[in-house]
Parts: sequence; structure tokens; C-alpha cells
Amino acid sequence: MTKKASVAGKACIVGGGVIGGGWAARFLLHGWDVSVFDPDPEAERKIAEVLRNARLSLPALADVPMPAEGALRFADTLAEAARDAHWIQESVPEDLALKHKVLADIQTVATDTAVIGSSTSGFRPTQLQDGARNPGQILVAHPFNPVYLLPLVEIVPGRIAPHEILDRAVATVTAIGMKPLVVRSEIDAHIADRLLEATWREALWLINDDIATTQEIDDAIRFGFGLRWAQMGLFETYRLAGGEEGMAHFIRQFGPTLKWPWSKLTDVPELTDALIQKIADQSDAQSGASSIRELERVRDANLIGVMRALKARDWGAGALLGEHDRRLAALMPEDIPEAGMSAEPLRMLDLAVLPAWIDYNGHMTEYRYAEVFSDTSDRLLLMIGMDDDYVAAGCSYYTAETHIMYIDEVKLNQRIYSTTQILSADAKRLHVFHRLHAGDGDRLIASAEQMYLHVARESGRVCEAGSALLEKVSAIADAHTHIPWPDTAGRHVGQR
Amino acid sequence: MTKKASVAGKACIVGGGVIGGGWAARFLLHGWDVSVFDPDPEAERKIAEVLRNARLSLPALADVPMPAEGALRFADTLAEAARDAHWIQESVPEDLALKHKVLADIQTVATDTAVIGSSTSGFRPTQLQDGARNPGQILVAHPFNPVYLLPLVEIVPGRIAPHEILDRAVATVTAIGMKPLVVRSEIDAHIADRLLEATWREALWLINDDIATTQEIDDAIRFGFGLRWAQMGLFETYRLAGGEEGMAHFIRQFGPTLKWPWSKLTDVPELTDALIQKIADQSDAQSGASSIRELERVRDANLIGVMRALKARDWGAGALLGEHDRRLAALMPEDIPEAGMSAEPLRMLDLAVLPAWIDYNGHMTEYRYAEVFSDTSDRLLLMIGMDDDYVAAGCSYYTAETHIMYIDEVKLNQRIYSTTQILSADAKRLHVFHRLHAGDGDRLIASAEQMYLHVARESGRVCEAGSALLEKVSAIADAHTHIPWPDTAGRHVGQR
Repeated sequence: MTKKASVAGKACIVGGGVIGGGWAARFLLHGWDVSVFDPDPEAERKIAEVLRNARLSLPALADVPMPAEGALRFADTLAEAARDAHWIQESVPEDLALKHKVLADIQTVATDTAVIGSSTSGFRPTQLQDGARNPGQILVAHPFNPVYLLPLVEIVPGRIAPHEILDRAVATVTAIGMKPLVVRSEIDAHIADRLLEATWREALWLINDDIATTQEIDDAIRFGFGLRWAQMGLFETYRLAGGEEGMAHFIRQFGPTLKWPWSKLTDVPELTDALIQKIADQSDAQSGASSIRELERVRDANLIGVMRALKARDWGAGALLGEHDRRLAALMPEDIPEAGMSAEPLRMLDLAVLPAWIDYNGHMTEYRYAEVFSDTSDRLLLMIGMDDDYVAAGCSYYTAETHIMYIDEVKLNQRIYSTTQILSADAKRLHVFHRLHAGDGDRLIASAEQMYLHVARESGRVCEAGSALLEKVSAIADAHTHIPWPDTAGRHVGQR
Repeated sequence: MTKKASVAGKACIVGGGVIGGGWAARFLLHGWDVSVFDPDPEAERKIAEVLRNARLSLPALADVPMPAEGALRFADTLAEAARDAHWIQESVPEDLALKHKVLADIQTVATDTAVIGSSTSGFRPTQLQDGARNPGQILVAHPFNPVYLLPLVEIVPGRIAPHEILDRAVATVTAIGMKPLVVRSEIDAHIADRLLEATWREALWLINDDIATTQEIDDAIRFGFGLRWAQMGLFETYRLAGGEEGMAHFIRQFGPTLKWPWSKLTDVPELTDALIQKIADQSDAQSGASSIRELERVRDANLIGVMRALKARDWGAGALLGEHDRRLAALMPEDIPEAGMSAEPLRMLDLAVLPAWIDYNGHMTEYRYAEVFSDTSDRLLLMIGMDDDYVAAGCSYYTAETHIMYIDEVKLNQRIYSTTQILSADAKRLHVFHRLHAGDGDRLIASAEQMYLHVARESGRVCEAGSALLEKVSAIADAHTHIPWPDTAGRHVGQR
């Protein structure tokens, strides 16, 4: 397959912790070249660990091949890292003076068209822009951990960012699979962290007052409203709770409880050493049996499952994944081969086994074979002229039968390719034989014998294909009469 | 299928709104007989609607058959409804005087061993017990909407509930698939609603101050931390954010932000008519294109997907589903062999065509047929004893061949079910014939003839299945010799 037409650029990551590493991984896995600057001698190891997790998980959200990974480089100076970058992301600790210093250093080398994003959880863009050489190119781009999986990024342009910088920021984070939430009116802590902060404060009180442990609070979340909030937020959920009488009714009914003593309104618990130790001890009791690395893998696998479940329903974060797939697919070049007249099966798909295709045995799961063969057929049909216009004109080929023989196993990341041999074709029927091979050594993995019928979609009745299409099919079918008939074609299930 | 060995009892539901209806559905679908008392003339219709949603969704979480549904009855008086009930659930509006009146009426007929649960979001059990004839049998059992899907229930016994009442309450809600969180120290609004209340107040400020709309706040949740909280709560998530340095480090680092102006600490927004209208209008713009009923179905399908994704990972709410399956299965040890003894194909999966399964023609896409048949096979293999332990011991069935005949189309939301007929079975081979039917009128949609080989996973060689498994297979296969051989079995592709 030819290399994709790249739209990736060069990203500079300043600060290589969990957040900076997550940004680096998202850019790299979408084909961007990434330069990292972080004076921490551990930064390279830390980024490598984040990247390892990201490589195992981000591609598992996609159902199309990811672009080839970009190049990762560690720079000795900030200037070296930031020069020529299209996107510069600052993820240093929450200290305004430090951020000002770093942003000033960045702007001594950054091009005027670069976007400079800050991962700050709390500072407003106006605070960051204050005193900058080119304040309009600095905006808040606040992501959520794990950055390589969670799509949300709060983009806060403040009052002086020009439209083209904001547009470029939105287009860039969209291209790396994120969901930009443009915060129109700047405010400390943006939107999500204000909600988190309110929850966090209340949770600290519950622990401080010995009402609940960290485990009990977490259970109150993940067995209840946490499940709701993975797919609908606070307001849509309450809209449903209001039932047929609607949202205004709900608020009138439950609003007054805000004035009841249901939460600690007016105070912040003192973070004494004793309270911190109490929380740390409860957290150890809850989660201490697993290392942070182990828990991260559990979390990532869970998030993949949750997001893929929503993808199957084309909803929320899952709908975003579907859109992103379509964007990635559109970047792949038109590499449909000329219908070959040689006495060789046509070479069709060429791809790698994705993490989501693996079953509990560590092999490609059964129905994914059917998916690869189905995609192979789709490509053949496109090759012979059954494009969108042809289908829109009223007819298409329908699959009547598929007989798959499972011959060998394939594992994660294994490269595979498919071929097609046309066994016979007439005006109404198309009989094909697909093979799936491992990319290394051409080992045969599976075969699929398929019968297609040409159908008028309105009536559902079999009818004759158009002459241009038939001409193409016949040319291939004629060439393929010289290929030996496959041993396993024409067999019934269980035939020895 | 034989009736299960019942451990179900009789439940009385007082108040038949969304919450009471959800309780009724959970009890009914777990085989309990349910009496409802609600003076609202609309109660019967409302409960029927909740029950319709619940029947479509709760069984979709289980991988074992649910018990036969209990009997639903509407009582004319509270006394008639509550008499002889093992569990009486009060879900009337949040008005302490009303709740005292209802609880007093209940206690004029309730047996002393009945558990009386209150769905109150905010009152403490001590407040409810105050002045009661038998205060120790009253406790808070606070569930979350939709009650038939979300597992969390806060059980708050207060200070005077005897141990046996608390134990019975925990056992009962566990038996109907819920996750009891026993709140050890009573507090207004228990645990989860304190967290929700804090978030809700902050969200109201964001809207009041025109920082964000309901849509933007919901997106901030469901594309970000809502995904996290479906599987790990606040503290376990922050433990990971703290990275290798741990929880105490995290709190010391982020604790100080609590004192920054990140949230509205000291005030409650005035719920003026203007603010209520603003929220209602924004909510209409966000969600008004769908009716409440439609949104409920979307929500339920999403929750099923999210919870099943976690089930596949044996984590959190998903691990609970697995435990609940094992409990349900243990209640009906005789069912599965019984099912196989009749000369009828086994009824297997029962599901609806999901949006993501639809192709550009508006029909179920080709490889999803393969997925449904693959899931059907998985269930058959589980039925005959190929569980995790069996696979871990070294062997499993591998698919050797699949021949799918596509007979008719299915569309979005169409209910479909699959059946299985065992054509032949010996020590090493299992030859099956699955059918896929439309749920309305049993129209045949597709069939799949499959050959499975019993394989030693390490060597990849065919070997003999275990005797317990063979015994189960043979019993079903023997019964199935009386079913006519399918017309399309033993065919090769294109055979007329």
C-alpha cells in the first residue's frame, strides 16, 4: 500500500510527565513528529512508559489502520525542541511564574503561526498571555488523563486569540482524535475541573468526617452515576429523571434541596497531615494490591471497552470515534489496483491485526475473519464499478452465501493480506474465492468462498448487472480461468 | 424450560413513579410477585412504560436465563398491597410528614420480619424511624435511576435497625442484582447525592453566569471524567494521576487548589423563574429533538453496552454482573440440560439490531451476521460446560468452518433471535446449525452451519473433549436427532 497523504506536522512537548507524555503519544500515533523538552533526567523513561500504554490502547479504538507513527526525539534545549513546531504544548507544573518563563522562552523561537497550548488545569488564558511577546498565539488546551484515550480537551482562547489560531487549534486536536470543547468565556479552572473540584471537596469532607472511605465513595460513583455520565451528562440525565413533565419541572422539584444541608457549602476541610495520611491509607487498602502500572492497564482496557460500546451505538464519545475513523480512512490514498488481467488472484487488503480484534485466547476473534472478507468483497465490487453512483441508481450485489474455512491463527499486530479469485461470473451471479494470508511468509490463514447476487434494491429481486460492470467482471473472470480451482472450493461443511 | 427453584418473595411498591416503577421491574424480572399501591390514576400506565423498558434491557445484561417473571398486581389500598410482603419499598415524594404517614400506614399491616425500605434521596433513617411503631424495620434503600439497570443502592440502617434486618436487606437487593453500599454513619443525602449535589450546584452557577450551556457541561462530563468514573471512582483515578509518587503526593500537590477560586464555595444560585427557563431552553436545544421515551431507550442501550464492556473485563459494575450471573445460574442448575432434551432447536440469543450494525443500505451489515452466529456458538459452548476453567485447563473448541446463508434482511432496532440445532457430535467434532430469525413472526433471516474441533491449545492439535462436556453434548445431540435435517445443511456454495 502506498504511504498515506500526510497531514501530520511537527509537535513540541514541553514537560514530559503523565500529561505531556499523553500529548506526545497522541501526536506520534497520528503520524506527527514529536520533540520533547524536559530537564528531568527521568523524562525519557517516563514518556516511554506512557507511550507503551498508548500503543497498546489508542489503536484499539480505531477500526481503520492508524497512520505510520511519527519520529520521537528528545531535545537538549527548549529552543531546539520548539523551532519549526506547528503545535507547542506546555505541560509544566501549575506555577504562574514558571509558566510565564517557559512561554517567554518558547516565543523566542516559535513561528508566529504555531499554536502554543497550555495544559493548565486552572489558569485563565489572559493570565498566561499577560506580558507575552505574541499573546494571541497562546491558548489553554486542557486535556484529561489518560490523554491518549480520553477525547475531551478544553480549548480556551481568551479574549485576544485571533480566529485563525482558534480554528487551527480546533482542527489540530480534532485530527488527533480529540473532542475540543471551546470555552467561550474564560474562568478559573475552565468547566470540567470546576465540577471535579466541587465533587472532590465534598468527598474530602466525607472522609474527614468518617462517613465513608475512599473505597465506599468510589463505589458510590462507579456503580451509580459514573455509569450514567459515561454516556449522558448531568443535564440530559436529569431531563430523563424529570420524566414526561420535563426539565423545568425537575428543577422546581429538586431545586429546593440545594438549600437543605445536603452538602458542605461554606468550608474547605483542613488538609492536615492526619487527613492526608488517612486518605492515603484508605487508598492503599482499596487499590494497593496493584501497582500504578497495573492499574493503568486495567483503566485503559476498561476505557477501551466503554468507548467501543458507545461506538457500537454511535453515541457520545463513541460517535466521535466513528467520525475519527472516517477522517483517518479519507486520508488513505486511492490505492485500488487496476483490475488485473493476469492469471494470479488479485491482491486486495493489506492490514495489521488490531488490538480490538483479539479474543481471550490472544488470537483474532472468529467474526473478524468475516469482517476482513467482507471488506475484501467491498473492494472487489468497487473495483468492478459498483460505486456509490451505481448503488444510488438502484442495484447492488448482495451476499447470498459465505463459507469460511479457518486454517491457522493470527495474533496481535500480525500483518495480513487478502486475495481474490473469481471462480465464475454471469449477468446475475458472482462467485468468488478470497484467501487471507499472513504477511510474513504468505502462510494461508483462512479462505472464504462467496456467492453474490445482483439485486434490484427496491424489489429485492435478482436482475442483470449493467454492461460496463459486466465487462470488467468478465475480463477478470476470463483471466482467472487459468488459475487452478481451489482445493476447498465447492466443499460443504465437514467434507473430508 | 423448568421453573427455577424460587427464592423470590413478595414485594410491595408504594408510589409508582419512575423510581417505584424501577423497583417493581427489578423485583418482577427476578421472579418476585409485586403489588403496587399508588392513588395516581396514571400509575398503571407509568409502571407499564418503565416495565417495558426494563424487559428490553435488564435481561440484556445477563448471560444466563432470567427467572420466570413474577406476577404484577395493582392494589386498591395500601393495606392490601403491603400485607404478607417480604419487602415493602416506599417511593413517595420527599416530604417528611407524608413519609411518616405512609410508613405508619404500612406498619399497621406489615409483618415484623418485613424489610421496609425508603427510596428517600435525603432523609436520614433516624428521621424516618422517629415515632414509628417498629422503627427497627425501617431503613433507607436509596436506588439510582434507571433502577432496573444501575446496580447501586445505598442501604442506611441508622442506629437502631437490628442486624437481621440489615442482613436481610443486603441479601435481598443482592439477589435482584444490585450493589448494596451500606452507609455506616447516617448523614443527610447519604453519600452519592452529596457528591451529585455539589456538582449540580456548581453546574447551575456555570449556567447562571453564562460560562457554559447544558450541552457544553454535559460534553465536559461525557467526553472526559464521566468515562473514567464508569469504571474507577474519584480516588482510584487520582491515585493514577499521582503516578508513581502515590496518593499523598497527589493530595499535597493539588490540595491547595481547593483554596483557589476554582468553584463557588459559599453561595447557592437563586432559582429564579428566569434561570429555570434558561436551563429548560438550553436542555430543549440539546435534547429536545428526541422524546423522553426515545432518550430513555438510548440511555438504556448505552448503559447495557458500557456495563457489558466492563463485564468482559470483570471489573466494577461488570464484575458484579458476572457474580450475579453465577448466582442466577446456581438457582437453576437443572435448566440447561432440560432445555436440550426436547426435539426443538435451542433458543439462544435474543437481541435488537444496534445502530452500528447497519450498512449503507440500511440493513444489518454482512459480518455482523457472523458476529451474532459467533456469539451464539459461544453461548452453546458455555452451556455444554466450556467455561473459563475448562479453557484454562488447556482445551477449547475452535471453529473450523462456517457456512452462512443470507436469506433476508434485517433493519435497525429489529428484534432478532438465534437458535441452535446440533447436527452431530463426537469426541472431537461438533457440527451445529444456527438459525437467525426476526422476532416478529419468526421470519428466517440467515443460517450458519458450523464445524467445531476440540483442540489442545498449547499444541494446536485436535483431541478428545472431557467426559462431563461430552455427556452434555450427547444429551442435546440425541434429542436433536428427532429434528428434521435442515434443507440447506451439507450444501456447498452456489448449490441449487
